[in-house]
Amino acid sequence: MKQHQARPTILYRGSRSAKTRADILAAAADIASAEGLEALSIGRLATHLRMSKTGVFAHFGSKQQLQLATVDAAKQIFLCQIAGPSLQSPRGLPRLGSMLEHWLSYVEKITFRGGCFFAAAAAEFDSRPGAVHDEIAALSRAWLNALRNEIAFAQREKQLAFSIDPRQLAFELHAYVQEANWAFKLFDDKSAFLRARRAIAHRLASSAPHKTAFQKRRKGKVNE
Amino acid sequence: MKQHQARPTILYRGSRSAKTRADILAAAADIASAEGLEALSIGRLATHLRMSKTGVFAHFGSKQQLQLATVDAAKQIFLCQIAGPSLQSPRGLPRLGSMLEHWLSYVEKITFRGGCFFAAAAAEFDSRPGAVHDEIAALSRAWLNALRNEIAFAQREKQLAFSIDPRQLAFELHAYVQEANWAFKLFDDKSAFLRARRAIAHRLASSAPHKTAFQKRRKGKVNE
Repeated sequence: MKQHQARPTILYRGSRSAKTRADILAAAADIASAEGLEALSIGRLATHLRMSKTGVFAHFGSKQQLQLATVDAAKQIFLCQIAGPSLQSPRGLPRLGSMLEHWLSYVEKITFRGGCFFAAAAAEFDSRPGAVHDEIAALSRAWLNALRNEIAFAQREKQLAFSIDPRQLAFELHAYVQEANWAFKLFDDKSAFLRARRAIAHRLASSAPHKTAFQKRRKGKVNE
Repeated sequence: MKQHQARPTILYRGSRSAKTRADILAAAADIASAEGLEALSIGRLATHLRMSKTGVFAHFGSKQQLQLATVDAAKQIFLCQIAGPSLQSPRGLPRLGSMLEHWLSYVEKITFRGGCFFAAAAAEFDSRPGAVHDEIAALSRAWLNALRNEIAFAQREKQLAFSIDPRQLAFELHAYVQEANWAFKLFDDKSAFLRARRAIAHRLASSAPHKTAFQKRRKGKVNE
Protein backbone atom coordinates (compact mmCIF):
# COMPACT_ATOMS: atom_id res chain seq x y z
CA MET A 1 0.00 0.00 0.00
CA LYS A 2 1.24 3.44 -0.88
CA GLN A 3 1.46 6.07 1.83
CA HIS A 4 -0.48 9.26 1.46
CA GLN A 5 2.44 11.68 1.50
CA ALA A 6 1.00 15.16 1.31
CA ARG A 7 -2.46 16.14 2.37
CA PRO A 8 -3.86 18.63 -0.12
CA THR A 9 -4.75 21.96 1.39
CA ILE A 10 -7.19 24.47 0.03
CA LEU A 11 -6.75 28.19 0.54
CA TYR A 12 -9.57 29.80 2.44
CA ARG A 13 -10.25 33.25 3.75
CA GLY A 14 -11.73 34.47 6.94
CA SER A 15 -14.50 32.69 8.71
CA ARG A 16 -14.52 29.43 10.62
CA SER A 17 -17.29 28.30 8.29
CA ALA A 18 -15.02 28.80 5.26
CA LYS A 19 -12.31 26.74 6.95
CA THR A 20 -14.74 23.92 7.70
CA ARG A 21 -15.92 23.96 4.09
CA ALA A 22 -12.30 23.85 2.88
CA ASP A 23 -11.56 20.89 5.20
CA ILE A 24 -14.62 19.02 3.94
CA LEU A 25 -13.63 19.62 0.32
CA ALA A 26 -10.00 18.55 0.82
CA ALA A 27 -11.25 15.25 2.26
CA ALA A 28 -13.88 14.98 -0.48
CA ALA A 29 -11.32 15.43 -3.28
CA ASP A 30 -9.05 12.81 -1.74
CA ILE A 31 -11.88 10.27 -1.31
CA ALA A 32 -13.21 11.01 -4.82
CA SER A 33 -9.77 10.50 -6.42
CA ALA A 34 -9.59 6.97 -5.00
CA GLU A 35 -13.21 5.83 -4.70
CA GLY A 36 -14.98 8.08 -7.18
CA LEU A 37 -17.16 11.18 -7.01
CA GLU A 38 -20.20 8.90 -6.86
CA ALA A 39 -18.86 7.44 -3.61
CA LEU A 40 -19.14 10.86 -1.97
CA SER A 41 -22.04 11.29 0.41
CA ILE A 42 -22.81 13.58 3.31
CA GLY A 43 -22.73 10.54 5.62
CA ARG A 44 -19.39 9.25 4.27
CA LEU A 45 -17.78 12.68 4.75
CA ALA A 46 -19.30 13.18 8.22
CA THR A 47 -17.84 9.85 9.38
CA HIS A 48 -14.47 10.56 7.77
CA LEU A 49 -14.21 14.02 9.35
CA ARG A 50 -15.91 13.05 12.63
CA MET A 51 -18.51 15.75 12.10
CA SER A 52 -22.28 15.61 12.37
CA LYS A 53 -24.22 15.00 9.16
CA THR A 54 -26.03 18.28 9.74
CA GLY A 55 -22.68 20.06 9.96
CA VAL A 56 -21.60 18.73 6.56
CA PHE A 57 -25.05 19.13 5.00
CA ALA A 58 -25.16 22.83 5.88
CA HIS A 59 -22.40 23.47 3.34
CA PHE A 60 -23.85 21.52 0.39
CA GLY A 61 -27.47 21.32 -0.59
CA SER A 62 -27.29 18.26 -2.86
CA LYS A 63 -24.96 15.49 -3.96
CA GLN A 64 -24.35 17.25 -7.27
CA GLN A 65 -23.45 20.50 -5.50
CA LEU A 66 -21.03 18.53 -3.32
CA GLN A 67 -19.51 16.89 -6.44
CA LEU A 68 -19.17 20.24 -8.25
CA ALA A 69 -17.62 21.87 -5.19
CA THR A 70 -15.19 18.93 -4.96
CA VAL A 71 -14.18 19.35 -8.62
CA ASP A 72 -13.64 23.05 -7.94
CA ALA A 73 -11.51 22.24 -4.88
CA ALA A 74 -9.38 19.85 -6.97
CA LYS A 75 -9.05 22.58 -9.60
CA GLN A 76 -7.72 24.99 -6.94
CA ILE A 77 -5.12 22.41 -5.90
CA PHE A 78 -4.18 21.83 -9.55
CA LEU A 79 -3.76 25.59 -10.06
CA CYS A 80 -1.79 25.94 -6.85
CA GLN A 81 0.57 22.98 -7.38
CA ILE A 82 0.90 22.77 -11.16
CA ALA A 83 -0.37 25.67 -13.25
CA GLY A 84 0.67 28.46 -10.85
CA PRO A 85 4.31 27.41 -10.27
CA SER A 86 4.74 26.80 -14.03
CA LEU A 87 4.03 30.48 -14.66
CA GLN A 88 7.37 31.29 -13.04
CA SER A 89 9.20 29.73 -16.00
CA PRO A 90 9.71 31.83 -19.15
CA ARG A 91 7.09 31.26 -21.83
CA GLY A 92 7.62 28.66 -24.55
CA LEU A 93 9.72 25.52 -24.15
CA PRO A 94 10.81 26.20 -20.52
CA ARG A 95 7.21 26.72 -19.39
CA LEU A 96 5.98 23.69 -21.34
CA GLY A 97 8.61 21.54 -19.61
CA SER A 98 7.70 23.03 -16.25
CA MET A 99 3.96 22.33 -16.71
CA LEU A 100 4.65 18.67 -17.51
CA GLU A 101 7.18 18.27 -14.71
CA HIS A 102 4.89 19.84 -12.08
CA TRP A 103 2.05 17.61 -13.27
CA LEU A 104 4.21 14.48 -12.98
CA SER A 105 5.43 15.56 -9.54
CA TYR A 106 1.88 16.09 -8.31
CA VAL A 107 1.07 12.46 -9.21
CA GLU A 108 4.42 11.14 -7.96
CA LYS A 109 4.20 12.74 -4.51
CA ILE A 110 0.63 11.40 -4.13
CA THR A 111 -1.18 14.70 -3.69
CA PHE A 112 -4.35 12.65 -3.96
CA ARG A 113 -4.56 9.03 -2.85
CA GLY A 114 -6.15 8.12 -6.19
CA GLY A 115 -3.45 9.74 -8.38
CA CYS A 116 -4.43 12.51 -10.77
CA PHE A 117 -7.86 13.68 -9.61
CA PHE A 118 -8.97 14.66 -13.09
CA ALA A 119 -7.89 11.40 -14.74
CA ALA A 120 -9.93 9.47 -12.16
CA ALA A 121 -12.91 11.82 -12.48
CA ALA A 122 -12.80 11.67 -16.30
CA ALA A 123 -12.86 7.86 -16.29
CA GLU A 124 -15.79 7.90 -13.87
CA PHE A 125 -17.89 10.59 -15.59
CA ASP A 126 -17.07 10.18 -19.28
CA SER A 127 -20.28 8.19 -19.78
CA ARG A 128 -22.44 10.20 -17.35
CA PRO A 129 -23.83 13.31 -19.08
CA GLY A 130 -24.51 16.33 -16.88
CA ALA A 131 -22.97 19.30 -15.12
CA VAL A 132 -20.21 17.29 -13.41
CA HIS A 133 -19.10 15.70 -16.69
CA ASP A 134 -19.15 19.08 -18.43
CA GLU A 135 -16.99 20.71 -15.77
CA ILE A 136 -14.41 17.89 -15.80
CA ALA A 137 -14.31 17.98 -19.63
CA ALA A 138 -13.93 21.79 -19.70
CA LEU A 139 -11.06 21.76 -17.20
CA SER A 140 -9.30 18.86 -18.98
CA ARG A 141 -9.70 20.69 -22.30
CA ALA A 142 -8.32 23.90 -20.80
CA TRP A 143 -5.17 22.10 -19.63
CA LEU A 144 -4.67 20.42 -23.02
CA ASN A 145 -5.13 23.83 -24.69
CA ALA A 146 -2.65 25.44 -22.30
CA LEU A 147 -0.04 22.85 -23.37
CA ARG A 148 -0.88 23.46 -27.04
CA ASN A 149 -0.61 27.24 -26.65
CA GLU A 150 2.81 26.92 -25.07
CA ILE A 151 3.93 24.69 -27.96
CA ALA A 152 2.67 27.28 -30.47
CA PHE A 153 4.52 30.03 -28.59
CA ALA A 154 7.70 27.94 -28.62
CA GLN A 155 7.31 27.57 -32.40
CA ARG A 156 7.03 31.35 -32.87
CA GLU A 157 10.20 31.72 -30.79
CA LYS A 158 11.93 29.10 -32.98
CA GLN A 159 12.36 26.77 -29.99
CA LEU A 160 10.34 24.09 -31.78
CA ALA A 161 10.13 23.24 -35.49
CA PHE A 162 7.44 24.93 -37.60
CA SER A 163 6.53 21.54 -39.08
CA ILE A 164 5.18 20.38 -35.68
CA ASP A 165 1.38 20.31 -35.26
CA PRO A 166 0.84 21.82 -31.75
CA ARG A 167 -2.38 19.87 -31.22
CA GLN A 168 -0.63 16.60 -32.12
CA LEU A 169 2.37 17.27 -29.87
CA ALA A 170 0.11 18.30 -26.97
CA PHE A 171 -1.81 15.00 -27.40
CA GLU A 172 1.41 12.98 -27.17
CA LEU A 173 2.96 14.84 -24.22
CA HIS A 174 -0.34 14.72 -22.33
CA ALA A 175 -0.53 10.99 -23.08
CA TYR A 176 2.85 10.29 -21.42
CA VAL A 177 1.83 11.87 -18.10
CA GLN A 178 -1.56 10.15 -18.11
CA GLU A 179 0.18 6.82 -18.86
CA ALA A 180 2.55 7.36 -15.93
CA ASN A 181 -0.43 8.04 -13.66
CA TRP A 182 -2.18 4.89 -14.95
CA ALA A 183 0.88 2.63 -14.55
CA PHE A 184 1.85 4.02 -11.14
CA LYS A 185 -1.65 3.64 -9.75
CA LEU A 186 -2.36 0.20 -11.25
CA PHE A 187 1.03 -1.47 -10.76
CA ASP A 188 2.45 0.68 -7.93
CA ASP A 189 5.48 1.08 -10.18
CA LYS A 190 7.51 4.26 -9.82
CA SER A 191 9.54 3.56 -12.98
CA ALA A 192 6.54 4.91 -14.89
CA PHE A 193 7.69 8.44 -14.02
CA LEU A 194 11.15 7.78 -15.43
CA ARG A 195 9.53 6.49 -18.65
CA ALA A 196 7.28 9.53 -18.94
CA ARG A 197 10.22 11.90 -18.40
CA ARG A 198 12.29 10.05 -21.02
CA ALA A 199 9.39 10.10 -23.48
CA ILE A 200 8.86 13.85 -22.98
CA ALA A 201 12.58 14.63 -23.35
CA HIS A 202 12.88 12.47 -26.46
CA ARG A 203 9.75 13.90 -28.09
CA LEU A 204 10.78 17.50 -27.42
CA ALA A 205 14.33 16.85 -28.70
CA SER A 206 12.91 15.36 -31.91
CA SER A 207 10.70 18.46 -32.29
CA ALA A 208 13.63 20.88 -32.24
CA PRO A 209 13.90 23.20 -35.24
CA HIS A 210 15.23 21.33 -38.25
CA LYS A 211 18.85 21.92 -39.15
CA THR A 212 19.55 21.90 -42.88
CA ALA A 213 22.38 19.75 -44.22
CA PHE A 214 24.20 23.04 -44.93
CA GLN A 215 23.91 24.11 -41.26
CA LYS A 216 25.01 20.66 -40.10
CA ARG A 217 28.06 20.75 -42.38
CA ARG A 218 28.99 24.21 -41.12
CA LYS A 219 28.95 22.81 -37.59
CA GLY A 220 30.88 19.70 -38.69
CA LYS A 221 28.02 17.45 -37.57
CA VAL A 222 27.30 15.52 -40.73
CA ASN A 223 29.09 12.38 -39.57
CA GLU A 224 27.75 12.38 -36.01
CA MET B 1 -24.80 11.03 -27.14
CA LYS B 2 -22.84 8.33 -28.90
CA GLN B 3 -24.69 5.33 -30.22
CA HIS B 4 -23.77 1.90 -29.01
CA GLN B 5 -22.70 0.43 -32.34
CA ALA B 6 -21.82 -3.18 -31.74
CA ARG B 7 -23.11 -5.29 -28.89
CA PRO B 8 -20.31 -7.47 -27.58
CA THR B 9 -21.01 -11.17 -27.82
CA ILE B 10 -19.40 -13.87 -25.76
CA LEU B 11 -18.83 -17.34 -27.10
CA TYR B 12 -20.67 -20.04 -25.22
CA ARG B 13 -21.08 -23.74 -25.64
CA GLY B 14 -24.03 -25.97 -25.26
CA SER B 15 -26.62 -25.46 -22.62
CA ARG B 16 -29.28 -22.83 -22.27
CA SER B 17 -27.81 -22.00 -18.87
CA ALA B 18 -24.44 -21.22 -20.48
CA LYS B 19 -26.17 -18.91 -22.97
CA THR B 20 -28.01 -17.08 -20.18
CA ARG B 21 -24.76 -16.66 -18.27
CA ALA B 22 -23.06 -15.32 -21.42
CA ASP B 23 -25.95 -12.86 -21.97
CA ILE B 24 -25.74 -11.64 -18.37
CA LEU B 25 -21.98 -11.14 -18.65
CA ALA B 26 -22.16 -9.27 -21.97
CA ALA B 27 -24.63 -6.85 -20.36
CA ALA B 28 -22.51 -6.69 -17.20
CA ALA B 29 -19.32 -5.81 -19.12
CA ASP B 30 -21.14 -3.08 -21.03
CA ILE B 31 -22.66 -1.56 -17.86
CA ALA B 32 -19.35 -1.83 -16.00
CA SER B 33 -17.42 -0.07 -18.79
CA ALA B 34 -19.70 2.97 -18.50
CA GLU B 35 -20.85 2.99 -14.87
CA GLY B 36 -18.16 0.95 -13.14
CA LEU B 37 -17.83 -2.58 -11.79
CA GLU B 38 -19.07 -1.30 -8.43
CA ALA B 39 -22.35 -0.28 -10.09
CA LEU B 40 -23.04 -3.93 -10.95
CA SER B 41 -25.63 -5.63 -8.82
CA ILE B 42 -27.89 -8.63 -9.24
CA GLY B 43 -30.90 -6.27 -9.15
CA ARG B 44 -29.44 -3.86 -11.73
CA LEU B 45 -28.72 -6.73 -14.14
CA ALA B 46 -32.10 -8.37 -13.58
CA THR B 47 -33.88 -5.12 -14.45
CA HIS B 48 -31.65 -4.50 -17.47
CA LEU B 49 -32.17 -8.03 -18.85
CA ARG B 50 -35.83 -8.31 -17.72
CA MET B 51 -34.99 -11.42 -15.73
CA SER B 52 -35.87 -12.37 -12.19
CA LYS B 53 -33.30 -11.61 -9.50
CA THR B 54 -33.25 -15.30 -8.64
CA GLY B 55 -32.46 -16.12 -12.28
CA VAL B 56 -29.43 -13.83 -12.25
CA PHE B 57 -28.39 -14.79 -8.71
CA ALA B 58 -28.25 -18.49 -9.63
CA HIS B 59 -25.21 -17.78 -11.83
CA PHE B 60 -23.16 -15.70 -9.38
CA GLY B 61 -22.87 -16.28 -5.66
CA SER B 62 -21.49 -12.87 -4.68
CA LYS B 63 -20.81 -9.40 -6.02
CA GLN B 64 -17.10 -10.15 -6.24
CA GLN B 65 -17.77 -13.33 -8.22
CA LEU B 66 -19.98 -11.33 -10.56
CA GLN B 67 -17.22 -8.70 -10.96
CA LEU B 68 -14.54 -11.33 -11.62
CA ALA B 69 -16.77 -13.13 -14.12
CA THR B 70 -17.39 -9.78 -15.85
CA VAL B 71 -13.65 -9.08 -16.09
CA ASP B 72 -13.21 -12.56 -17.55
CA ALA B 73 -15.98 -11.90 -20.09
CA ALA B 74 -14.32 -8.62 -21.12
CA LYS B 75 -11.03 -10.51 -21.45
CA GLN B 76 -12.68 -13.01 -23.85
CA ILE B 77 -13.96 -10.11 -25.97
CA PHE B 78 -10.50 -8.50 -25.93
CA LEU B 79 -8.93 -11.79 -27.04
CA CYS B 80 -11.58 -12.30 -29.72
CA GLN B 81 -11.49 -8.77 -31.17
CA ILE B 82 -7.91 -7.65 -30.60
CA ALA B 83 -5.34 -10.24 -29.58
CA GLY B 84 -6.71 -13.10 -31.74
CA PRO B 85 -6.95 -11.26 -35.07
CA SER B 86 -3.48 -9.74 -34.51
CA LEU B 87 -1.99 -13.24 -34.51
CA GLN B 88 -2.78 -13.45 -38.21
CA SER B 89 -0.11 -10.82 -38.94
CA PRO B 90 3.53 -11.94 -39.20
CA ARG B 91 5.50 -11.53 -35.99
CA GLY B 92 7.47 -8.34 -35.30
CA LEU B 93 6.57 -4.94 -36.70
CA PRO B 94 3.49 -6.07 -38.69
CA ARG B 95 1.98 -7.79 -35.64
CA LEU B 96 2.80 -4.85 -33.36
CA GLY B 97 1.00 -2.51 -35.76
CA SER B 98 -1.93 -4.90 -35.98
CA MET B 99 -2.27 -5.16 -32.18
CA LEU B 100 -2.40 -1.37 -31.83
CA GLU B 101 -4.77 -0.93 -34.78
CA HIS B 102 -7.19 -3.61 -33.52
CA TRP B 103 -7.12 -2.02 -30.07
CA LEU B 104 -7.90 1.43 -31.50
CA SER B 105 -10.69 -0.02 -33.67
CA TYR B 106 -12.26 -1.74 -30.68
CA VAL B 107 -12.53 1.63 -28.92
CA GLU B 108 -13.54 3.50 -32.08
CA LYS B 109 -16.41 1.18 -32.99
CA ILE B 110 -17.70 1.38 -29.39
CA THR B 111 -17.51 -2.30 -28.49
CA PHE B 112 -18.33 -1.17 -24.97
CA ARG B 113 -20.39 1.92 -24.20
CA GLY B 114 -17.72 3.09 -21.76
CA GLY B 115 -14.78 2.78 -24.19
CA CYS B 116 -11.91 0.44 -23.34
CA PHE B 117 -13.24 -1.85 -20.60
CA PHE B 118 -9.83 -2.29 -18.98
CA ALA B 119 -8.99 1.42 -18.94
CA ALA B 120 -12.28 2.11 -17.14
CA ALA B 121 -11.81 -0.83 -14.76
CA ALA B 122 -8.21 0.19 -13.98
CA ALA B 123 -9.26 3.73 -13.08
CA GLU B 124 -12.01 2.37 -10.84
CA PHE B 125 -9.98 -0.34 -9.07
CA ASP B 126 -6.46 1.10 -8.93
CA SER B 127 -7.04 2.19 -5.33
CA ARG B 128 -9.15 -0.81 -4.26
CA PRO B 129 -6.88 -3.70 -3.25
CA GLY B 130 -8.25 -7.20 -3.77
CA ALA B 131 -8.88 -9.96 -6.28
CA VAL B 132 -10.60 -7.72 -8.85
CA HIS B 133 -7.74 -5.20 -8.81
CA ASP B 134 -5.18 -8.00 -9.12
CA GLU B 135 -6.92 -9.53 -12.12
CA ILE B 136 -7.25 -6.18 -13.95
CA ALA B 137 -3.58 -5.39 -13.22
CA ALA B 138 -2.43 -8.85 -14.40
CA LEU B 139 -4.36 -8.59 -17.67
CA SER B 140 -3.16 -5.02 -18.31
CA ARG B 141 0.42 -6.09 -17.59
CA ALA B 142 0.09 -9.06 -19.95
CA TRP B 143 -1.02 -6.78 -22.81
CA LEU B 144 1.83 -4.33 -22.15
CA ASN B 145 4.27 -7.28 -22.10
CA ALA B 146 2.82 -8.63 -25.36
CA LEU B 147 3.55 -5.25 -27.01
CA ARG B 148 7.05 -5.24 -25.53
CA ASN B 149 7.77 -8.80 -26.71
CA GLU B 150 6.72 -7.91 -30.24
CA ILE B 151 9.03 -4.88 -30.16
CA ALA B 152 11.93 -7.08 -28.98
CA PHE B 153 11.17 -9.59 -31.76
CA ALA B 154 11.14 -6.74 -34.32
CA GLN B 155 14.57 -5.66 -33.03
CA ARG B 156 15.99 -9.16 -33.50
CA GLU B 157 14.63 -9.11 -37.05
CA LYS B 158 16.28 -5.69 -37.62
CA GLN B 159 12.88 -4.08 -38.18
CA LEU B 160 13.52 -1.73 -35.26
CA ALA B 161 16.78 -0.17 -34.05
CA PHE B 162 18.82 -2.01 -31.40
CA SER B 163 19.14 1.24 -29.46
CA ILE B 164 15.41 1.21 -28.67
CA ASP B 165 14.36 0.14 -25.14
CA PRO B 166 11.38 -2.19 -25.76
CA ARG B 167 9.83 -1.34 -22.38
CA GLN B 168 10.07 2.38 -23.11
CA LEU B 169 8.60 2.07 -26.61
CA ALA B 170 5.76 -0.16 -25.34
CA PHE B 171 4.98 2.50 -22.68
CA GLU B 172 4.73 5.22 -25.35
CA LEU B 173 2.67 3.25 -27.89
CA HIS B 174 0.31 2.03 -25.15
CA ALA B 175 -0.02 5.65 -23.98
CA TYR B 176 -1.24 6.85 -27.40
CA VAL B 177 -4.12 4.36 -27.52
CA GLN B 178 -5.11 5.06 -23.91
CA GLU B 179 -5.04 8.80 -24.65
CA ALA B 180 -7.30 8.30 -27.69
CA ASN B 181 -9.73 6.35 -25.52
CA TRP B 182 -9.65 9.11 -22.87
CA ALA B 183 -10.16 11.97 -25.36
CA PHE B 184 -12.86 10.17 -27.34
CA LYS B 185 -14.84 9.28 -24.24
CA LEU B 186 -14.47 12.63 -22.47
CA PHE B 187 -14.84 15.01 -25.43
CA ASP B 188 -16.72 12.75 -27.88
CA ASP B 189 -13.99 13.70 -30.34
CA LYS B 190 -13.15 11.19 -33.07
CA SER B 191 -10.03 13.10 -34.13
CA ALA B 192 -8.32 11.45 -31.16
CA PHE B 193 -8.01 8.25 -33.24
CA LEU B 194 -6.29 10.14 -36.04
CA ARG B 195 -3.86 11.62 -33.51
CA ALA B 196 -3.10 8.22 -31.98
CA ARG B 197 -2.50 6.69 -35.43
CA ARG B 198 -0.18 9.56 -36.39
CA ALA B 199 1.70 9.27 -33.10
CA ILE B 200 2.15 5.50 -33.55
CA ALA B 201 3.31 5.87 -37.18
CA HIS B 202 5.73 8.66 -36.28
CA ARG B 203 7.16 6.83 -33.27
CA LEU B 204 7.67 3.60 -35.19
CA ALA B 205 9.26 5.45 -38.12
CA SER B 206 11.67 7.18 -35.74
CA SER B 207 12.53 3.77 -34.23
CA ALA B 208 13.63 2.28 -37.55
CA PRO B 209 17.16 0.85 -37.65
CA HIS B 210 19.71 3.64 -37.76
CA LYS B 211 21.41 4.33 -41.07
CA THR B 212 25.02 5.44 -40.77
CA ALA B 213 26.19 8.55 -42.63
CA PHE B 214 28.13 6.17 -44.91
CA GLN B 215 24.95 4.22 -45.79
CA LYS B 216 23.06 7.46 -46.35
CA ARG B 217 25.78 8.78 -48.68
CA ARG B 218 25.75 5.55 -50.67
CA LYS B 219 22.01 5.98 -51.17
CA GLY B 220 22.47 9.67 -52.02
CA LYS B 221 20.25 10.69 -49.10
CA VAL B 222 22.57 12.96 -47.21
CA ASN B 223 20.95 16.15 -48.47
CA GLU B 224 17.33 15.00 -48.06
